[in-house]
Amino acid sequence: MKISMHAMSVDVFTHTLGNVSWFLEKAARSAEQRKFDPGILLAARLAPDMLPLTRQVQIAGDIAKGAVARLAGQEPPRFEDNETSIEQLRARIARTVDFLKSVPASALEGAETRDIKLPAGERTLEFKGLDFLQRWAIPNVFFHVTTAYDILRHNGVELGKRDFLNGGREQ
Amino acid sequence: MKISMHAMSVDVFTHTLGNVSWFLEKAARSAEQRKFDPGILLAARLAPDMLPLTRQVQIAGDIAKGAVARLAGQEPPRFEDNETSIEQLRARIARTVDFLKSVPASALEGAETRDIKLPAGERTLEFKGLDFLQRWAIPNVFFHVTTAYDILRHNGVELGKRDFLNGGREQ
Repeated sequence: MKISMHAMSVDVFTHTLGNVSWFLEKAARSAEQRKFDPGILLAARLAPDMLPLTRQVQIAGDIAKGAVARLAGQEPPRFEDNETSIEQLRARIARTVDFLKSVPASALEGAETRDIKLPAGERTLEFKGLDFLQRWAIPNVFFHVTTAYDILRHNGVELGKRDFLNGGREQ
Repeated sequence: MKISMHAMSVDVFTHTLGNVSWFLEKAARSAEQRKFDPGILLAARLAPDMLPLTRQVQIAGDIAKGAVARLAGQEPPRFEDNETSIEQLRARIARTVDFLKSVPASALEGAETRDIKLPAGERTLEFKGLDFLQRWAIPNVFFHVTTAYDILRHNGVELGKRDFLNGGREQ
């Protein structure tokens, strides 16, 4: 028995995006308790030339849905980037997860050898499916998920490894 | 054809740890150019109750080697946590990568169904190998790799997505 591209993309991304939704729930609660506008957290960044929390969350989901769609040989669905509240961002994550779950394991059969072309500014990156998952999609999703977490921790939201790995659950 | 546990652990971790070594090289250069002690970067944190850069780098590697060893049914090799310079941290990463590369694909055959027991404080977490890789090892390695990157970016080291994904190379 070997493992599947579906298990290493849809399952992994669904789980971590669910955790991001949980970070955002804790962020909303933290802002309420500390009596400030949660929009301050949404606009927070770790450096002037890094993206703010809202964009980190949008991009984490977009990379996940884009990667799974491409691995399945589909065009990824496009979402407008118009969220202005934590509630709206959590709804976007839920829509993203719904899309991921709509892609059956059968659609990713053989995806490890599929040719993936990825527009990147003026260039087009080309990968085989497995390489795309290993070196582009997984690192990139976790980059934005972790940076969202780091922005919140830097701004005093009480989060720990259990929240990061498992949405606050024991295991 | 399916993909292997080896491809999704050894290959993924080797690649991302190589990128961390590259972040550290850029960090050393940045400290030199900006004329401050690089130890300041090694001690930097994103929050008072988060770990500093040195620990983020040590832990990223330890999780990778611990996870691959456990998936192979081995005890992970232990490294002393005694690095005090960027050069020493890069040497530790190189030792970690050497260990990862020493584990052949055959040692991870069937690892997806292996019972993994992980000491976690007073408790022991129990996983099947695939679940351990999906929900614990991969997210955890990328958590520490990204946080190392975020600490450096927060402290003005010039890094971008290409550095994160590919050690500064085009693709």
